[in-house]
Amino acid sequence: MREHLFIHPEVADALAKRQPVVALESTVLTHGMPHPRNVETARRVEAAVREGGAVPATIAVLDGRIRVGLDDDDLQRLGEVGRKAWKLSRRDLPVALALGVEGSTTVAATMIGAELAGIPIFATGGIGGVHRGAELSFDVSADLEELARSSVCVVTAGAKAVLDLPKTLEVLETRGVPVLGFGTDRFPAFYTRDSGLPARRVDGAEEVARILHVKWRLGLDGGVVVANPIPEADALDPAVVGSAIDEALEQARAHGIAGGDVTPFLLERMEALTGGRSLEANVALIIHNARVGSAIARALCALQN
Amino acid sequence: MREHLFIHPEVADALAKRQPVVALESTVLTHGMPHPRNVETARRVEAAVREGGAVPATIAVLDGRIRVGLDDDDLQRLGEVGRKAWKLSRRDLPVALALGVEGSTTVAATMIGAELAGIPIFATGGIGGVHRGAELSFDVSADLEELARSSVCVVTAGAKAVLDLPKTLEVLETRGVPVLGFGTDRFPAFYTRDSGLPARRVDGAEEVARILHVKWRLGLDGGVVVANPIPEADALDPAVVGSAIDEALEQARAHGIAGGDVTPFLLERMEALTGGRSLEANVALIIHNARVGSAIARALCALQN
Amino acid sequence: MREHLFIHPEVADALAKRQPVVALESTVLTHGMPHPRNVETARRVEAAVREGGAVPATIAVLDGRIRVGLDDDDLQRLGEVGRKAWKLSRRDLPVALALGVEGSTTVAATMIGAELAGIPIFATGGIGGVHRGAELSFDVSADLEELARSSVCVVTAGAKAVLDLPKTLEVLETRGVPVLGFGTDRFPAFYTRDSGLPARRVDGAEEVARILHVKWRLGLDGGVVVANPIPEADALDPAVVGSAIDEALEQARAHGIAGGDVTPFLLERMEALTGGRSLEANVALIIHNARVGSAIARALCALQN
Ligand SMILES: [Mn+2]
Ligand SMILES: [Mn+2]
Ligand SMILES: [Mn+2]
Repeated sequence: MREHLFIHPEVADALAKRQPVVALESTVLTHGMPHPRNVETARRVEAAVREGGAVPATIAVLDGRIRVGLDDDDLQRLGEVGRKAWKLSRRDLPVALALGVEGSTTVAATMIGAELAGIPIFATGGIGGVHRGAELSFDVSADLEELARSSVCVVTAGAKAVLDLPKTLEVLETRGVPVLGFGTDRFPAFYTRDSGLPARRVDGAEEVARILHVKWRLGLDGGVVVANPIPEADALDPAVVGSAIDEALEQARAHGIAGGDVTPFLLERMEALTGGRSLEANVALIIHNARVGSAIARALCALQN
Repeated sequence: MREHLFIHPEVADALAKRQPVVALESTVLTHGMPHPRNVETARRVEAAVREGGAVPATIAVLDGRIRVGLDDDDLQRLGEVGRKAWKLSRRDLPVALALGVEGSTTVAATMIGAELAGIPIFATGGIGGVHRGAELSFDVSADLEELARSSVCVVTAGAKAVLDLPKTLEVLETRGVPVLGFGTDRFPAFYTRDSGLPARRVDGAEEVARILHVKWRLGLDGGVVVANPIPEADALDPAVVGSAIDEALEQARAHGIAGGDVTPFLLERMEALTGGRSLEANVALIIHNARVGSAIARALCALQN
Repeated sequence: MREHLFIHPEVADALAKRQPVVALESTVLTHGMPHPRNVETARRVEAAVREGGAVPATIAVLDGRIRVGLDDDDLQRLGEVGRKAWKLSRRDLPVALALGVEGSTTVAATMIGAELAGIPIFATGGIGGVHRGAELSFDVSADLEELARSSVCVVTAGAKAVLDLPKTLEVLETRGVPVLGFGTDRFPAFYTRDSGLPARRVDGAEEVARILHVKWRLGLDGGVVVANPIPEADALDPAVVGSAIDEALEQARAHGIAGGDVTPFLLERMEALTGGRSLEANVALIIHNARVGSAIARALCALQN
């Protein structure tokens, strides 16, 4: 396995000492934001994890290996490659590794890397889910499948805003994935704090850690969603978000954008339509999730040591 | 694991001696019937298992543990708590355990408890399935997922009557779950003996036991549905059931009932609309399934000893 | 396990010596072609595997056992039994074994047999997938589930032509199954070389072998689709195929054909509607897949030895 998985010495050391580590994804670096904002954000997210008392482990595929923990020049290199990097989900991982291609990891692939490395906590922006129109297209993100499968806790501000949230929650329920509202009984909606849909309320990182501990001790494999609403001060106006999403979706249809290209396109359109405020919100919520992820990682270590 | 799983000494003793045990769910106790009918029924079901030559193991979550096998005062306590207890599916189990909340187990969570305890046979009333309208709502019971995953044989009078039965059977087929008609080549319809849909006919508990034995010996993990039609004498008139379901579904829509509240609401409406006969039928079929479950448990022990 | 799984000595010997083996399905023998064309084709496919430098292992259920590797009289016996044999998917396997019934294995059941025997490469004609109209019927082949679950590489000319290909590819993506285009970046359409949908291009058996090796070494369980287009010379005219499929589907609806009977019916109608050319194409593509399967099996052995 070692030949295809490289764990950064700092991460390996923390794991060996049972110290808190937080996994981070790299698609935001390559496909989620323009250069150099992407690299700058990745650094701020890593710094937020460190301030939270944990070691950051950004995950990507470089030189035929899953790298768990990137150096600063890896961050820069990926940030410059940008959309030319492959955007890797479960199905793409072995192909990219075998062909020696550079790639960034989606939520699904990051969960795989985190689980392989033994990191139970992962902070991201938004998870994938059921796409609008999936009743006819059957387009459902592999992230949901991975949440049912890999034993990683994903701290997120909700599913990406352009998805069908009720269907996404139904699939998570069917697949047995706990969806915990962090300090709230409402499932958040990424740019806004309340989707109008319910979540199971938990209060504080210790409560999350206890749930994770019980779940995995009992052999109930699979992931957990910690739905952490964007901070009030950073949240966008729900009406603005709603009409921007509608317009962006309309444009995606008009341009015939499909598959893995949809999310990057929509994020870009959202940014234009909100005058850049969606990008600011996106950065703020990722950093917020990194902090909460660190707190959960610390609480879980405390419980297990 | 022991800290979150408590196996009643009588059950543990039977399992250690490789004697037949039948798992039973507890949602019927908290959400399926009014007090005190629920407790009375639970006792009769346990008695039916004993008369069938097996040890009953009703499963619930109490005091932060999955309890496999309840004492009579546990039954009473849960029966009084009623709908204030959490109704636990796979996603809820670790939360209820970590928070120390009382909960009853659905088919999915009972399968989990049974598998953890090493009990391969479980008798219930009706399994969950694909909800009517799921082509738009994506509302599919976690019971189907669990049947694909946990190696437990579930003896049932069919899927709950208000579900979409053709879609439910399609999902079970896709997921590789055997659906065996116990003495019939028709999938039963809970209150009635024939849904008009096919099942793979098996004759007798020994045949079921042989199938289970082969399946799990080959490493083909996952559950088996034994579809056991309600006894002729207890079955309702299909025309009466059909119109009562339509009316109950209409009322659920009118009242905006959704999610986990749908089944209890519909059962209650069915009872009113059939003048209490649906409740009698429900009791009769659970007891019948308990008897058949005992016979299968005995046959499987005979085969394995 | 041995009591329900019989591995032909020639196959067992090759596996023990880490020599290339290619698994083959048997539904084409019982349900895919008329007698004696079916037996003749099965022999030609086995011969193609041998010419390709591997040992063929046709899989079926006979005398209460999964047989991995058939003798010539087994082939003949199954070919004569024809449609009276059970057509076995995952859910049917334990039933057929326990009841001692003869059965042929679909893609799903063949993958199970291959994985149990330790054969990572399997060549077939077309895999199952999402049926047209599945947005309402929920009719999805268990083959897709098996591809998500069993670690076997399936060489195929695409999904069966009568399926909904875009939905089939979406489900495979969601479930994390790599779909590799063998020498092409287009997903083939069984009788024709290009469905208009994308596949991840790979070039040569060595590249496939490297991907398989990495995938399974990393513990990324589950199957891989190698989509190998029908040879140019054998491909049918897309317009002819299109109208024949439409007509055959119309007839299936008119005759009320459903479930597992659909594919055999459609293949037969296609044959009549194309004046037998669809059958010739079917034979040609299976033999082509057998050759490519052998090359991949050889490359994988070379990599692992
Ligand atoms: Mn998709
Ligand atoms: Mn539901
Ligand atoms: Mn089907």
